Amino acid sequence: MSKQQNILIIGAGLCGSLLALRLGQRGYNVTVYEMRPDLRKTDISAGRSINLAFSDRGNKAMKLVGIEDKVKALCIPMNGRMIHDKEGNTFLSNYSGRDHEYINSISREGLNSLLLDEAEKHNNVTIHFNKKCKSVDFENTTALFQDYNTKKEFIEDADCIIATDGAGSALRKSYYLGKKFLFSFSQNYLNHGYKELSILPTKTGDYKTYKNALHIWPRGDFMVIALPNLDGSFTVTLFLSYDEGEYNFNNLTTPERVTEFFQKEFPDALTLMPNLVDDFFKNPTAPLGTVKCSPWHYKGNTLLMGDSAHAIVPFYGQGMNASFEDVVEFDAVLDKHEGNWETVFSEYEKTRKKDTDAIADLAIDNFHEMKDHVGQEIFQEKRKIEMALEKEFPNEYSSKYSLVTFNEHIGYREAMLRGRAQDKAILNMLSDGIIKPSDNLKDILNKVKLETEAILEDDRIAGLK
Amino acid sequence: MSKQQNILIIGAGLCGSLLALRLGQRGYNVTVYEMRPDLRKTDISAGRSINLAFSDRGNKAMKLVGIEDKVKALCIPMNGRMIHDKEGNTFLSNYSGRDHEYINSISREGLNSLLLDEAEKHNNVTIHFNKKCKSVDFENTTALFQDYNTKKEFIEDADCIIATDGAGSALRKSYYLGKKFLFSFSQNYLNHGYKELSILPTKTGDYKTYKNALHIWPRGDFMVIALPNLDGSFTVTLFLSYDEGEYNFNNLTTPERVTEFFQKEFPDALTLMPNLVDDFFKNPTAPLGTVKCSPWHYKGNTLLMGDSAHAIVPFYGQGMNASFEDVVEFDAVLDKHEGNWETVFSEYEKTRKKDTDAIADLAIDNFHEMKDHVGQEIFQEKRKIEMALEKEFPNEYSSKYSLVTFNEHIGYREAMLRGRAQDKAILNMLSDGIIKPSDNLKDILNKVKLETEAILEDDRIAGLK
Repeated sequence: MSKQQNILIIGAGLCGSLLALRLGQRGYNVTVYEMRPDLRKTDISAGRSINLAFSDRGNKAMKLVGIEDKVKALCIPMNGRMIHDKEGNTFLSNYSGRDHEYINSISREGLNSLLLDEAEKHNNVTIHFNKKCKSVDFENTTALFQDYNTKKEFIEDADCIIATDGAGSALRKSYYLGKKFLFSFSQNYLNHGYKELSILPTKTGDYKTYKNALHIWPRGDFMVIALPNLDGSFTVTLFLSYDEGEYNFNNLTTPERVTEFFQKEFPDALTLMPNLVDDFFKNPTAPLGTVKCSPWHYKGNTLLMGDSAHAIVPFYGQGMNASFEDVVEFDAVLDKHEGNWETVFSEYEKTRKKDTDAIADLAIDNFHEMKDHVGQEIFQEKRKIEMALEKEFPNEYSSKYSLVTFNEHIGYREAMLRGRAQDKAILNMLSDGIIKPSDNLKDILNKVKLETEAILEDDRIAGLK
Repeated sequence: MSKQQNILIIGAGLCGSLLALRLGQRGYNVTVYEMRPDLRKTDISAGRSINLAFSDRGNKAMKLVGIEDKVKALCIPMNGRMIHDKEGNTFLSNYSGRDHEYINSISREGLNSLLLDEAEKHNNVTIHFNKKCKSVDFENTTALFQDYNTKKEFIEDADCIIATDGAGSALRKSYYLGKKFLFSFSQNYLNHGYKELSILPTKTGDYKTYKNALHIWPRGDFMVIALPNLDGSFTVTLFLSYDEGEYNFNNLTTPERVTEFFQKEFPDALTLMPNLVDDFFKNPTAPLGTVKCSPWHYKGNTLLMGDSAHAIVPFYGQGMNASFEDVVEFDAVLDKHEGNWETVFSEYEKTRKKDTDAIADLAIDNFHEMKDHVGQEIFQEKRKIEMALEKEFPNEYSSKYSLVTFNEHIGYREAMLRGRAQDKAILNMLSDGIIKPSDNLKDILNKVKLETEAILEDDRIAGLK
């Protein structure tokens, strides 16, 4: 294979700009087309989340491209969930019993800008903005674009095309509408949508509430969360049903009703948000969807990567991390099969899809956990036991959350299977009185390990695998 | 509500013609548009299965419309699965330990003709053929049709529109492309396709192999099945991967290779099919897909029913039965809420969707069971135990298969949850030596019941429901 091969990347978001950087480092001629303006020059945050959770799987990719330290400077560590009850009482539930395991709040704009800057340092990487992809001819490896300013359409060809154009991917749409092969596809929406709000800094630029946590106000059927920004503000997100329950997005139509809702359900948050009503009616309400599909690739011509292949709901804080891990996995497959795009693409999908399917399902699980379970006693007992196990036996126990978030050496699917079995083991043994939080920790650990193995083995036999 | 309300039904297949009959009986003005010619006057079987499995849930609908006896005359009872191994040995595995529980082979054409005849007996029911629905304007409750003969397009309106137009539904497509509301949708294909073949009658018109069974040649990764027809023939279906394994649809391209494949894998079937090669190259290869979506309805204007709402793979023999049961469930909701279509539609979806989701998943389970598990020893031991339990304790035990197929008073979802738990209980107790086929049956029954309850309870606690 000649390294002068031309690769066309559709989309210069987080995944696309990282991929451009990595393929640039590998020596390919990379051309990227992005539909939005250059976010380093314009304010275009509207409609997309302002900050994101960044953790170990994402960091694995930053190490790969050698910018770990630069990214670290953008991060605000969050050591746990700060749970706020209706009376305004708070308690901190750490993400792990191991002190070095935490997640970070990071600015989408800051991180994306860094990745674009790093990619453009390579002469063999070119990034064009304001060029929207309309469709992809995957049989001829060409893409149709429209320039936002001139409105003119033009066609680009390449040796292969990789679409990192997000949940509304033009390539995925071309696969679906093309009907040239059997394309399995799903889009599933929750009955809940989300709206971004904000807690502004104090007059002196300080944080109005505890900085180093992901704040959650869980209320069973809905919730509010908040993540810190470097400027002292928090980005707040309300997750709420469109049409169910006493208060929902469809019936929160007046300032009075919005204030009443927050007064009743989130009084301590309301006092931090004098700007609530303005934010509420200025910012859009957006849906929460999961997208899965297969195949991701057409021969060696085209490939879906990142959200275009597997958009997930945000509740595990893994959307960006999963897309970054895509690039790491893709890079590893390139090491093995470079020179044969069809083998690279099909091998990549084969090894990767089971894991992105798993994180999609885990993210739905966590929706219920965050808005509801974290407020339940048996769940809190389980978390207490898990924190103690992780602290006391740091090399012998990792909770489902830790397996997913801090154990980047195992795949999401393995983390899901083991993590779910552990959860089931602990919850059932607590319910049956087989373990109590006050028991000797070593005894608890042994029982949890045995019961987890038994659950996995029972499932294996029932599945006749 | 005035009973002169006009209902437009799109599609006069099995579900549409039954629905027309039932709504005609209830006094509505019913107009049906079908894209195909009238199957009572033309041979249009190509591309659709020739015969189908008909069982208790379907029969519930026949009782509702009062044609149970007429349908019975079309049925050929199949008491069990006749398993054929590679050496041509056969053994019969009954569907139930209760003699009165069996399924039937029925001709699609015969049954559909009967339903059309019965529907047309009502003056308030009109059926038009050769009129293809192109799209539905669900906000204005109108549908656009094209006449196959004249090619002319025309628009029809109605008080409400119900689409029973199958897996490729025009209404579902209009929901998806309309983007007027959040539409969750999935289409998932197996890697296997299917092709219909045939075993012709003997010269004297007799059946060449045992008549009253569903014949299966399970081979792990692929299989052949055969269902009897009234004329002495069997309709045979080959289920095979498109592109995996030594033999697949993509590489079975010559008569020699097709014959070699059957000689090696299905020698006893080959001797019954001198016409194999002709059938193989004459008949199409068709995909196996599952479709789920939500919502099924738009306000009180439009509704998806049958395959248009929930197409499933054929491995549980429940596709037609599920669609017929749709009509029964819909009729029951009409009894409660007649006069308010929006309430009828939303209530119907709410009660019904959980069950059609379940049968979709069960049908995938059974794909693996039929092509693979039925040939495994532990599975055969489980079936032997279940047959004995059903025979000995007919009122106390029903296998998953019986719950799904013969217990039409419970929903598919309940059948799935209980049936899966029972399977897991028996397989694990067999594997652990806690039960043996030679044990006292009453002891086995008690152990299975206890273990099943424990499994359901463990799942309940782990789900925190």
